[in-house]
Amino acid sequence: MGSLAPVFANRFDRVRRAMQAEGVDVLLLSVGPDLPWLTGYAAMPLERLTMLVLPVDGEATMLLPAFETARVAPHPDLFRIEGWEETHDPIARTAELVGSATELAIGDHTWSRFTVLLQGAMPQASWRNAGTVTGPLRAAKEPAEIAALQRAASGVDRVATALRGGEIPLIGRTEADVAAELGRRVVAEGHAKVNFSIVASGPNAASPHHEPGDRVIRPNEIVLCDFGGTTEEPDGQHGYCSDLTRCVFTGEIPAEIAEAYAHLLDAQQAATAAAVVGTPAGAVDAVARGHLAEHGLDHYFLHRLGHGIGVEAHEDPYLVEGNDVPLAAGNAFSVEPGVYVEGVWGARIEDIVVATDDGPRPLNTVDRELAVVDV
Amino acid sequence: MGSLAPVFANRFDRVRRAMQAEGVDVLLLSVGPDLPWLTGYAAMPLERLTMLVLPVDGEATMLLPAFETARVAPHPDLFRIEGWEETHDPIARTAELVGSATELAIGDHTWSRFTVLLQGAMPQASWRNAGTVTGPLRAAKEPAEIAALQRAASGVDRVATALRGGEIPLIGRTEADVAAELGRRVVAEGHAKVNFSIVASGPNAASPHHEPGDRVIRPNEIVLCDFGGTTEEPDGQHGYCSDLTRCVFTGEIPAEIAEAYAHLLDAQQAATAAAVVGTPAGAVDAVARGHLAEHGLDHYFLHRLGHGIGVEAHEDPYLVEGNDVPLAAGNAFSVEPGVYVEGVWGARIEDIVVATDDGPRPLNTVDRELAVVDV
Repeated sequence: MGSLAPVFANRFDRVRRAMQAEGVDVLLLSVGPDLPWLTGYAAMPLERLTMLVLPVDGEATMLLPAFETARVAPHPDLFRIEGWEETHDPIARTAELVGSATELAIGDHTWSRFTVLLQGAMPQASWRNAGTVTGPLRAAKEPAEIAALQRAASGVDRVATALRGGEIPLIGRTEADVAAELGRRVVAEGHAKVNFSIVASGPNAASPHHEPGDRVIRPNEIVLCDFGGTTEEPDGQHGYCSDLTRCVFTGEIPAEIAEAYAHLLDAQQAATAAAVVGTPAGAVDAVARGHLAEHGLDHYFLHRLGHGIGVEAHEDPYLVEGNDVPLAAGNAFSVEPGVYVEGVWGARIEDIVVATDDGPRPLNTVDRELAVVDV
Repeated sequence: MGSLAPVFANRFDRVRRAMQAEGVDVLLLSVGPDLPWLTGYAAMPLERLTMLVLPVDGEATMLLPAFETARVAPHPDLFRIEGWEETHDPIARTAELVGSATELAIGDHTWSRFTVLLQGAMPQASWRNAGTVTGPLRAAKEPAEIAALQRAASGVDRVATALRGGEIPLIGRTEADVAAELGRRVVAEGHAKVNFSIVASGPNAASPHHEPGDRVIRPNEIVLCDFGGTTEEPDGQHGYCSDLTRCVFTGEIPAEIAEAYAHLLDAQQAATAAAVVGTPAGAVDAVARGHLAEHGLDHYFLHRLGHGIGVEAHEDPYLVEGNDVPLAAGNAFSVEPGVYVEGVWGARIEDIVVATDDGPRPLNTVDRELAVVDV
C-alpha cells in the first residue's frame, strides 16, 4: 500500500481544509464512494455499521465490525482502526467519538437506518451532506485518476468497436441477451464489474433508461447500447467508471433517422467543444439543446446533457440547466444528448470528456456515426 | 403482471395496518428492498430521486424521473405514477405529497443525501426507520417466498456439490480465481447476480469476512467457501437470496481440525433443531454457543449465529444475543456458527433454515461434513 499512502494523505488534507472552509466539525463516512476514495477501503453494504469518524482536527477513527478489521489496509498516520463486537452498539460509539461537536456532515450514500439512529443519539447536532465537502474535491481529478478513467474509456471503446464492426449478432436475439453479452465484454476489457448495460431496440430506444427485456431485435431498426462498469485497480485503489453510448442500425437507415442523427451528432460535438474550463456547466447543456432546437429536435431531448464520473458512475459536476458552477480543469463528465420519439425510435451519443487547460478532451474516441450492422 | 397484483395488494394492506399500529402517517420508500417487495419496482440507485409516498390513508404516489416512468409496471389500484422533469425539484414535490403529516418512516437504505434534504424541507416532521414497519412483515414469508428461497438454496447446493465432489480445482489457484468461478456457477444455477463469494484458505479462513485475494491455495489446508446471490424471478417479482457456507480440505485432515469441526457441526445441528417457532431468536444463538463452550471452542466463535434472509441478503430476524423476539412461522434465516483460530485456520457451516409449525426446515441439504478434495 506504500505507493497510495501519499495519495490518501493528500486527500485527507484537502478534505480537512474543505471542512474548515465549510464549517464542518466532523465528517462521517460509511458505504458509498467517498470512503474508498479517501482511504482505499469500501464499507460492506450490510446492516453492521462501518463508519469513518473524521474530525476537522484530531485523530480519525475507522469503526467497523471487529471481525472485518483485517479487511482494512492500515494507514496509521491517517486513521486508527477500531473493531466493535457483535453485542456492542456502534451507534453509541460513533456518538462518543463525535463528542460535543455540532456541525456534522454524513456520507451521501449512508443508509438512512443509520442516519436516523445517529440523529437520535446526537440531538445536539445539525446535519448536512458530505457531498458538500467531498463533491468538489472528487470532481477535480488528479492525473492518475484521469489515466484510470482513460483506461476505463478505452475498454468500453473496444466493446463498441466490436459492436459497430458486426462482431456481436443482433437480429433475432433478445435485448436482454445482447445486454448480457455487452456486460461480459465490459468485464473482459478490464472492468471489475458492470454498472449497467442498456440495449434498447426500435421503439424501446425512445426510453432513455430502458430495461433490456424479451423484445427480439429485428431487421431495419435502431439499437441503442449504453454500457459501463468500474475498473479493477490494484492495491486497494477504488476503481473508476466508464459510460459509453453508441447506436447501430440493423438495415438501411431511413432518410429521416439519418438526418436527425446527423443533427444529434453535430449537437454532441458542439457541446463537447463548448466544455471549456470556466464555462458554467449549465451553459454546455444549453449549447446542445440550442443546436437541436435549430432543427426542431429539442423537445425530443428529455434529459440533462451529462453527469460527472469518477469512482462513482454519476457525480459532480452535472451538466444541467441551472448549474452555474464553472467547469474546472480535471472535471470529467459525460456529454450525451439524445432524441427520443415516443413509440417510434430514439438515439443517444455519449462520450466521457475531460476539461483541461488545453481544452476539452474526449476519453472515448470510437467512431460516433450510426453504423449499419448485422445485414 | 396480473398474477402479482393480489400479492402486492395484500402487502399494501399489511403495511397500512402496521403503519396504523405503529402510528406512522406516511411511509417513504426509495432505493432498497422494501420498494420492490411492495410494488415490484426497484429504484435505480442513482442521484435522481425515486420515492414511493405512501400515506396510511389516501392515495399513494410513485415519484420518479419522468423518463424512467416506463420502467414501472403500473398497479393503478395501489399507486399513481408521477414523473418529475430534469429541472423540477423532487424533494419539494415529496414534501408537498407528505403535506402536514408529522410521523414519517423513511426506507432503511434511502441515501442520506435525500433524507437530509427531506428533513430540511419538512421541519415539522419526526423521522423513524421504515424497517420498524416493514421488517416484521417481510420476515413472515409467504409460501411463494419460501418456494423462491428454496429454489435459491437448491441452486447454491448444486454449486457446493460440485465443490465437494472435486469438480472445482483448488490447489495452485488463487482464492480470487476460485471465488470468480463460484460466482459464475451461482449465476449458472438460476441467480440473476452474485451478492458475495468468499474463498478463504488456510489461515485466511480465520477471517469471517475475508476478501479473496492473491493467496494461492496449497495442499493440506482448509478452504472456506461462502457464497450466495439473488435469484432471477419472472414478471417484476424481486429475486430472493441464497447464502451457503461449506468447507473442504485439500489433504488429510489433521485430528485437531477434524475434532473441532465435528463439534462445530454438532453445534450447527443443535442450533437448527432449536430454531422452533416461539423460541427467542437470541436463545438459538445461545444453543450453538453453549455447545461450543462445552468443548472450549466458544471464544473462537466471533460473530452472531445468523441473520434473516429474503429479498435482502441480511434482514430480520437476527439470531444474536439480546434479541428476545420469538421466532415466527415463516421466518427464514441462516444458522452459521464458526470457529476462527487467528493466523491458523477457521471453519463455518451455514444453512438457510425456515421456522415452520412442523419444526425447523433446512432449505440447504448438501452434505455438511468436511470433504477432502483435490488430492
